[in-house]
Amino acid sequence: MKTRGLFLLFTGNGKGKTTAALGLAFRALGHGQRVAMIQFIKGSWKYGELESAKRFSDLLDFHVMGRGFTWKSDDLDRDIALAREAWRFARATIAENRHQLVILDELTYLVSYGMIPEQEVIDTLASRPPAMHVVITGRGAGQGLIEAADLVTEMREVKHPYSRGIKAQRGIEF
Amino acid sequence: MKTRGLFLLFTGNGKGKTTAALGLAFRALGHGQRVAMIQFIKGSWKYGELESAKRFSDLLDFHVMGRGFTWKSDDLDRDIALAREAWRFARATIAENRHQLVILDELTYLVSYGMIPEQEVIDTLASRPPAMHVVITGRGAGQGLIEAADLVTEMREVKHPYSRGIKAQRGIEF
Repeated sequence: MKTRGLFLLFTGNGKGKTTAALGLAFRALGHGQRVAMIQFIKGSWKYGELESAKRFSDLLDFHVMGRGFTWKSDDLDRDIALAREAWRFARATIAENRHQLVILDELTYLVSYGMIPEQEVIDTLASRPPAMHVVITGRGAGQGLIEAADLVTEMREVKHPYSRGIKAQRGIEF
Repeated sequence: MKTRGLFLLFTGNGKGKTTAALGLAFRALGHGQRVAMIQFIKGSWKYGELESAKRFSDLLDFHVMGRGFTWKSDDLDRDIALAREAWRFARATIAENRHQLVILDELTYLVSYGMIPEQEVIDTLASRPPAMHVVITGRGAGQGLIEAADLVTEMREVKHPYSRGIKAQRGIEF
């Protein structure tokens, strides 16, 4: 039987979406599978995983696309152009078919902000190489993405340390 | 300011709890922090992360405690003894204070099955080395654990591939 890739979606307002995707990468790399991790937003400050990624440089391609833009920017046209450029890169990575697992981290925000049509994401995933697993993370995934996905977990915030006045910690970085 | 460790709890019936803990390990390792991952249940079949862990053998201690017992066993006394032995090991690891992050994967089941008193877990965490981060994962975390934790995410199952008749995939292993 030929392996069919899964489309996994981690959404919701709780912590653990990106970290769960990282964990999947860790697991897949252990099987010797090639992994592409494309970060659309969080970008440059995630020092921890970038350092860890170096130990898997033979298998893991780690791309930080969010460095150049922010949602607080005054230049909306530039932001949209950068978002679409990041999305073009992701589509090219999928089409290239060099990876068994492709992670599109925080992609939902680009859809929520109207920078990428949801249908374009659904179509890209539907026409991906059949054995490829794809993970999309981010808050507020739309109904179309939820219907298209094979597995959907909502990470629901029950309690957050900021509500207790605790600052983000090095290594944990929540 | 001295760093204070966090107690994070990933619970709920959805997928992503253990994988989120793995992702945190991946991140912390990138900071050069020492990590202990203690698996209470899933055990021997998680080939992927065991292989990946080898690349971090200088920093990551990976302990699979669940190999010897199963919830379907006929020998309940033996199961309880094994569960308590695993828990003793976890407490010793915490007391030893050699790690910045300790992950107690699927520990909630031992509490749910009445093999470990919830209060014993709460007390152990309350008296841990102050800078140590601890992650507990597993379904059905009790109210006491939720109250004691700094951060709680409920991984809620929205859609599962088995409901579509899709088998577990190598590398993804859901």
